[in-house]
Amino acid sequence: MPAIVDHDSRREHVARIAADLIARVGLNSVTMRQIAAEAGFSTAIVTHYFSSKHELLLHTYRSTAISAQARVDAVLAQHPGDVLASLEALVPRDEESRRDWKVYIAFWHIAALDPVFAAEQAAQALNARRILHEALQARSARGWPPAEAEVATVAQRLLLILVGLSVQAVFDPVNWSADAIRRYLVAELGPLCDR
Amino acid sequence: MPAIVDHDSRREHVARIAADLIARVGLNSVTMRQIAAEAGFSTAIVTHYFSSKHELLLHTYRSTAISAQARVDAVLAQHPGDVLASLEALVPRDEESRRDWKVYIAFWHIAALDPVFAAEQAAQALNARRILHEALQARSARGWPPAEAEVATVAQRLLLILVGLSVQAVFDPVNWSADAIRRYLVAELGPLCDR
Repeated sequence: MPAIVDHDSRREHVARIAADLIARVGLNSVTMRQIAAEAGFSTAIVTHYFSSKHELLLHTYRSTAISAQARVDAVLAQHPGDVLASLEALVPRDEESRRDWKVYIAFWHIAALDPVFAAEQAAQALNARRILHEALQARSARGWPPAEAEVATVAQRLLLILVGLSVQAVFDPVNWSADAIRRYLVAELGPLCDR
Repeated sequence: MPAIVDHDSRREHVARIAADLIARVGLNSVTMRQIAAEAGFSTAIVTHYFSSKHELLLHTYRSTAISAQARVDAVLAQHPGDVLASLEALVPRDEESRRDWKVYIAFWHIAALDPVFAAEQAAQALNARRILHEALQARSARGWPPAEAEVATVAQRLLLILVGLSVQAVFDPVNWSADAIRRYLVAELGPLCDR
């Protein structure tokens, strides 16, 4: 019997390796050959899953965003409406999340040049706002923010805070420790924070 | 008599061309030869001013930040303490400022990999905070923010808002028109805004 190959998990494995390499050596230096070697596959197998570097990079960007969303989903499943914990699951505060932000920033550079990546960047921004919107809606039942219109405005504001804070923190992990990030978020969130 | 060559203005001319090219084709695609051709110089002249692409890129990053600072200085000379106008002089709201932000984002990608660019990024962030700090201090005389400690906190918060907003706006100029940016900033600034 032929070995059963889990194609999805292979694609994810390759995307994870690609993300690590992008954060380490940069988007332009990284090659399909290098990604294949680090993933333990032949270049032929990698090109079987991703027909071009462009396709692999796009998948890597999506995959990084999906794993960030999974972190928030896990938080919200435990503590519905915990906006602080949702934001903390997204900011760069450990090795993994710092790597994610290096990958996002690398992709922003392509998104500024390539319409396919620009569309993906817009979709990811919308998705991040939707995640924050849902966290806020779970709170809204408790009286704040008061109305749906307000929820959309606050979700947008939280996304901007998230991006601004994360760009600072990824370059300055000494001043933006996990504790410093929490203090900043608690102050920003005000009545949106239970702690 | 030999022609008088203004070396500083030549360097700035090259940096300006480099910034345009980086925003248009990306940091990695751009070559010294291409920059020289667009600047109307030989590659030899460009390498006389910048010994490497690395040095030229670093100068371009600084030069972009300096021209943004000059825009704020001009605003504050006219209207001391006008925080809204200072921020508006920095966000991507026209061709020039959008190009600047594409250049910043390109450099963030290198700053995530290269310690020299990381140090430069940290210096620029500090400088941006200092500019906002000065704008706030001019207001502080009018009673808000009340104390020096408060000024530093607000300056940091403004820098985060600036970065978060600008990253969204540079990718989504349709939803983030100059008017939409102003509405957002007015709401964020609250008592810091005179208008």
